[in-house]
Amino acid sequence: MQKRFIALAIAGLISGPALAQSNVTVYGLVDMGYAYRGDNIVDGVKNRSGIDSGQAAGSRLGFRGVEDLGNGLKAGFLLEQGLFADTGAGRADGNFSRQSYLYLAHDAAGTVQLGRVYAPQDSFISGFDPFAGGTVAQVGNIWSLREIRYNNTIKYISPSFSGFNVTAAYSMSIGTNQSGASAPATDQVNERLGNENDIRGWAISPMYQNGPLKVGASFQQRKTHDPLAANTDRNKRTTWDLGASYDFGVAKLSAMYGQGRDKDADAIAGAEAKIRQYFIGATVPVFTNGAILASYGHSKNTADGANDATATQWAVGYNHALSKRTGLYAAYSDISNKDGLTVAGVDQGLKAAVGDASYSGTGYQRGFQVGIKHAF
Amino acid sequence: MQKRFIALAIAGLISGPALAQSNVTVYGLVDMGYAYRGDNIVDGVKNRSGIDSGQAAGSRLGFRGVEDLGNGLKAGFLLEQGLFADTGAGRADGNFSRQSYLYLAHDAAGTVQLGRVYAPQDSFISGFDPFAGGTVAQVGNIWSLREIRYNNTIKYISPSFSGFNVTAAYSMSIGTNQSGASAPATDQVNERLGNENDIRGWAISPMYQNGPLKVGASFQQRKTHDPLAANTDRNKRTTWDLGASYDFGVAKLSAMYGQGRDKDADAIAGAEAKIRQYFIGATVPVFTNGAILASYGHSKNTADGANDATATQWAVGYNHALSKRTGLYAAYSDISNKDGLTVAGVDQGLKAAVGDASYSGTGYQRGFQVGIKHAF
Amino acid sequence: MQKRFIALAIAGLISGPALAQSNVTVYGLVDMGYAYRGDNIVDGVKNRSGIDSGQAAGSRLGFRGVEDLGNGLKAGFLLEQGLFADTGAGRADGNFSRQSYLYLAHDAAGTVQLGRVYAPQDSFISGFDPFAGGTVAQVGNIWSLREIRYNNTIKYISPSFSGFNVTAAYSMSIGTNQSGASAPATDQVNERLGNENDIRGWAISPMYQNGPLKVGASFQQRKTHDPLAANTDRNKRTTWDLGASYDFGVAKLSAMYGQGRDKDADAIAGAEAKIRQYFIGATVPVFTNGAILASYGHSKNTADGANDATATQWAVGYNHALSKRTGLYAAYSDISNKDGLTVAGVDQGLKAAVGDASYSGTGYQRGFQVGIKHAF
Repeated sequence: MQKRFIALAIAGLISGPALAQSNVTVYGLVDMGYAYRGDNIVDGVKNRSGIDSGQAAGSRLGFRGVEDLGNGLKAGFLLEQGLFADTGAGRADGNFSRQSYLYLAHDAAGTVQLGRVYAPQDSFISGFDPFAGGTVAQVGNIWSLREIRYNNTIKYISPSFSGFNVTAAYSMSIGTNQSGASAPATDQVNERLGNENDIRGWAISPMYQNGPLKVGASFQQRKTHDPLAANTDRNKRTTWDLGASYDFGVAKLSAMYGQGRDKDADAIAGAEAKIRQYFIGATVPVFTNGAILASYGHSKNTADGANDATATQWAVGYNHALSKRTGLYAAYSDISNKDGLTVAGVDQGLKAAVGDASYSGTGYQRGFQVGIKHAF
Repeated sequence: MQKRFIALAIAGLISGPALAQSNVTVYGLVDMGYAYRGDNIVDGVKNRSGIDSGQAAGSRLGFRGVEDLGNGLKAGFLLEQGLFADTGAGRADGNFSRQSYLYLAHDAAGTVQLGRVYAPQDSFISGFDPFAGGTVAQVGNIWSLREIRYNNTIKYISPSFSGFNVTAAYSMSIGTNQSGASAPATDQVNERLGNENDIRGWAISPMYQNGPLKVGASFQQRKTHDPLAANTDRNKRTTWDLGASYDFGVAKLSAMYGQGRDKDADAIAGAEAKIRQYFIGATVPVFTNGAILASYGHSKNTADGANDATATQWAVGYNHALSKRTGLYAAYSDISNKDGLTVAGVDQGLKAAVGDASYSGTGYQRGFQVGIKHAF
Repeated sequence: MQKRFIALAIAGLISGPALAQSNVTVYGLVDMGYAYRGDNIVDGVKNRSGIDSGQAAGSRLGFRGVEDLGNGLKAGFLLEQGLFADTGAGRADGNFSRQSYLYLAHDAAGTVQLGRVYAPQDSFISGFDPFAGGTVAQVGNIWSLREIRYNNTIKYISPSFSGFNVTAAYSMSIGTNQSGASAPATDQVNERLGNENDIRGWAISPMYQNGPLKVGASFQQRKTHDPLAANTDRNKRTTWDLGASYDFGVAKLSAMYGQGRDKDADAIAGAEAKIRQYFIGATVPVFTNGAILASYGHSKNTADGANDATATQWAVGYNHALSKRTGLYAAYSDISNKDGLTVAGVDQGLKAAVGDASYSGTGYQRGFQVGIKHAF
């Protein structure tokens, strides 16, 4: 009987509604605040201010669930939708473009995710940033040749062995991996299997955490995969990053160093990009529920023809928790890019620090944000 | 310990999934029915009929939650997605474009919402319409210079003091605030902070409710905010509305009077719009679970060059509740616009009464709808 | 009192949030796997592989609920969103374009659905396919003149009388009913009531099920509805299908025969399409939780000018259940279309078997998929 029942269930498994009881957790975060931005650029001074969404952390709505399959094995899924609460708009790069994957997790063997996932480098970099990769102060403003998300990916996260673990990922078509509104939705749809010209990539990130100490590394490589192209290697990009943080109690200090190289098509004005960059940060707990944040970052392009273009950012901020789910934040950032470091393609040496407006060019930027974020 | 824990939570608050237990209520409404529309316009008679969604109330799916922060303070959010159940399409103006906001609510001080919210005028007008702003009979068909939703807004709703309360809102970029399919999605995305040419506005609406009596007013003003423009005041729009209703038991009667002025760019054929309009309505409970509805509205443009263009609408309807969540409705509306009152921009003197097809011009319209709406 | 309360509730039923307690079940399915596709066509051999979503069953997230109205009557809704978990993209044809409807269900009288629903033919065909209409082996690859979904539809599903039941549907505007990414979103929005040129259709499908036996039929007809057109009958399409299956225990066998005719505008190269097609399938339970699947299908166009173009497909597969909710699958399909059977419009004689890339033309295709699907 049992056999027959399951066999029938197999044949008709698509009837989700009939089988399902609710195994889904709805979660998310809404972040709203006020932003001010001042640009001192060649073509004039611009000041902008507004009410904005997703400043410290992208506003999102997610759905996830897990099923115990026995013998230490679990199956689950996660679908996470980005949104802009100030307008109600969704992300232009797809409904569940923040994250969407199915996974199998085993207690001893680790977790395998299949779908659209965070690039290991993004989790790595954000983990050493006092601002957790958010606000006008985010390290991503100046960290060049950065990947955020991979499409069509198989990602492996090992269990922790005495504080040591490894994350690895292989993407058969990276797709658009920028955040938010600037990514065209068509890229997401068009890149499906019919396309012949994909960007494939892989990444590995070993990490060690033990009490107050955390050290790790991130390596990744991507190149155009086109069976018809003469020299796809010209479009190869390789980056590696090292990071460490130590929590002294009165303060948690962090530092990163990274190098990256991007050949030809994604580089500045047809030339290569050779990036050397570093970052230091500090988190100082204050009062009962607060923390002062500070960081400094520096990125330079030493490739021929790039004129050693350099971007630097320093930033300060303050976070205040109203509860474990709800917190206030304020952040100030000052970015100098007098040489015009602007790496084309997925990354920009100097991104628009405030709001979603793209900005590239020689100049200075100052940004300030204050707001509230509420997780649920 | 507690301090440290919370400080860490602050630094990494973005990990919503890890922190969250499900605090979310999923709610919504699906409205489906049959619609008939007859136009008698200059270029011929047109009759259309079809199965349609969102006739009496827009079909929607929403997510909301609230967290008690102690001392009378709460934090919460609401994300509401519009949809057309007849085709499965979403609203063209964004995923959560019905409403999306974060809020802080205090028992004594009131509620502050941040995000995309209803314009106070829309809640005001719909509150005096027996048809609650829905069906072919909605007051909005002829109420000119009307705002529905504001983007990028801070909205305040006071507590009720002996039946008196005030709603006020300030929008730093109103954006698209029309309902449904006609609003381009790009407007939602493009209007983000990078844009320099915003429409800013503010509104205030005091209300008094005591037993069967309700009286109130609505004032709002908007103008183009462009630091580079010579004379942004030319695009200013100002409206004010007064309303009252009294429930006599055998019937509830309501009335509104409104004036509005729109300068230059949003007006008819380059001329100004000066609108004077009024509306009366009645709701008569019948049977155990039913109500007969009726209304009459009139809008006139007295600006120079508008030739006193006038639109009038009369309407009757019937609502029947099958339960508190599910109800049947029928509505008939007759609109006369022989002078061709059509206010360009956000508002139209005579909108398409049935379906989403836009209609403007001189003529007559009759519309009939019958359907069922189910809230969940 | 009760009367008054409900009357007020009627007038203001749109305030879903205030009334609602959570009556919603969140459900869905994520399907991810690896796909390989080889085309041997006139302009060269192409081989493609990738990680893909929705292979065996479309990845989806759904919301549904039901309310008991008493006296055997229920009201409910279902909103089902398609998605591509490999990129996070939604379906291009609308947010809830898999299914979205409101329904009334009565124990004795049956169920009426209003909205976007599955065409009865699609449920019919998938029900006789061992692959349940999914994977590279789906019967839909070669079953010509097929409808999948209807917009703007009233659908009736009778109760079962001694194993006999009937499904019938009438659509006032069929709209886009293809699966997934190829359907333009604008079709969904534009087809609303304002359009004068609709495709209307109706369908009926009687079924009989008793123990191991299932037999049934499907009939449908659609034609362009345009009051201004001279001869809308030229665009008429009619199909009928017969099917039967019997579960012998060691194997379940199924067979279908179908005929279809499409006049003029939707046909090949301006000529008519006259389709004759058949399909046989087998499901063999193996091991405790597995099943071997196999099928063969054949479709021929006998219309004048179509040169008896013929497409055939044979396929094998294996399904393995890890639980009632989670299963593994593998499928291989071989399609031959040397005569170039390609029915324009909604259907294609030979669809892209792997991925969403559209393929039409003379040639051969081989596809292989392996993956995991997880219902929740």
